[in-house]
Amino acid sequence: MEKNDRLAEQNRRLFRSKKLLVLNVVSSPGSGKTAFIRETAVLLDGRLRVAVIVGDLATDNDAARLRDAGVAAVQIRTGTVCHLDAGMVFNAASQLDLDKFDLLIIENVGNLVCPADYDLGEDLRVVLLSVTEGEDKPLKYPPMFHSAAAAIVTKNDLAKAVDFDRGQALANLKRISHHAKIFEVSAKTGEGMNAWVEFLIRQHATASVAER
Amino acid sequence: MEKNDRLAEQNRRLFRSKKLLVLNVVSSPGSGKTAFIRETAVLLDGRLRVAVIVGDLATDNDAARLRDAGVAAVQIRTGTVCHLDAGMVFNAASQLDLDKFDLLIIENVGNLVCPADYDLGEDLRVVLLSVTEGEDKPLKYPPMFHSAAAAIVTKNDLAKAVDFDRGQALANLKRISHHAKIFEVSAKTGEGMNAWVEFLIRQHATASVAER
Repeated sequence: MEKNDRLAEQNRRLFRSKKLLVLNVVSSPGSGKTAFIRETAVLLDGRLRVAVIVGDLATDNDAARLRDAGVAAVQIRTGTVCHLDAGMVFNAASQLDLDKFDLLIIENVGNLVCPADYDLGEDLRVVLLSVTEGEDKPLKYPPMFHSAAAAIVTKNDLAKAVDFDRGQALANLKRISHHAKIFEVSAKTGEGMNAWVEFLIRQHATASVAER
Repeated sequence: MEKNDRLAEQNRRLFRSKKLLVLNVVSSPGSGKTAFIRETAVLLDGRLRVAVIVGDLATDNDAARLRDAGVAAVQIRTGTVCHLDAGMVFNAASQLDLDKFDLLIIENVGNLVCPADYDLGEDLRVVLLSVTEGEDKPLKYPPMFHSAAAAIVTKNDLAKAVDFDRGQALANLKRISHHAKIFEVSAKTGEGMNAWVEFLIRQHATASVAER
């Protein structure tokens, strides 16, 4: 763990030297991480140059989905490991020409537990909660939700079909993810996505990124 | 890990001496484990006596939901641990009068990675895949799906709303979960639940349980 923290700090210094804003996107399997990242990259086209590092146990499916949309993507296959670590991210990042990008999005393995403990050298940890998973997930996976700087309610187009209790979900997020800015989106309909990408553009423009 | 395997064998001997059929139910967070288990217990009323051990990082919500439906339930809180282990299950089982039950259902922590490696002493590992998660999950989490004796497609009432590709999902399940019997259900509408509970009754009646 100490070794991971040391490598994460190395990553952070590297990313800052390249003026990259870096996100670590975490969620359950099937919360819509790849669709959300793809739509984020498409909406940012011409404003921020986006690269993605995608983690999964097996398959290159997600990198292929991103490349199909014209997004630069590197796949990490972890085998049986339930999270990305800073070393894996460093190796994947070395396959990208970091000078050519403004925003690096790391899609972690779908898992609401293990990735919580691993700093990857990111600026912002982003946790996704799909409306289909239930309003109680922040209460049941507190370390992950507590550590997030942004919390995204995804698949909002399905909210009615699943009787999503928005008030309860937001109350649970505010209770556990109390450091997080909350966004409610649908990657499918585009609802809420503009507020999210404007937030990223502002984050990138802040002194912490642009002047470092 | 060796210690866990030893304790799992101890559990298995204990459960067999009590003529219990034991399930280890695994899935992503929010796949509908608790609703599925609750409906299973309700449908088995008068045929098999059911007890449930529920694992979560935090909260007693799931045990409370089960008790509200009249189901005997013991909650395990794992803190930050991403899976149940055989020792936790032994301690929880000692809070139940095992002579009073025919079927013990263990609801694991919501996680498609870590629980794959931990034998709890169960007879059958049961993996859930909700239609809202996407058809590709068996390919992306092969150790878990490969190890399952039964695979349950849940939330089937939402299949149309999420454009669920049933053919693709079943093909992926057959490819990875090739030891598994597949059921397609909705705990909400009851669709497919009868076939599942009849399967459990047959499993319980087989020599491996009734005569051991």
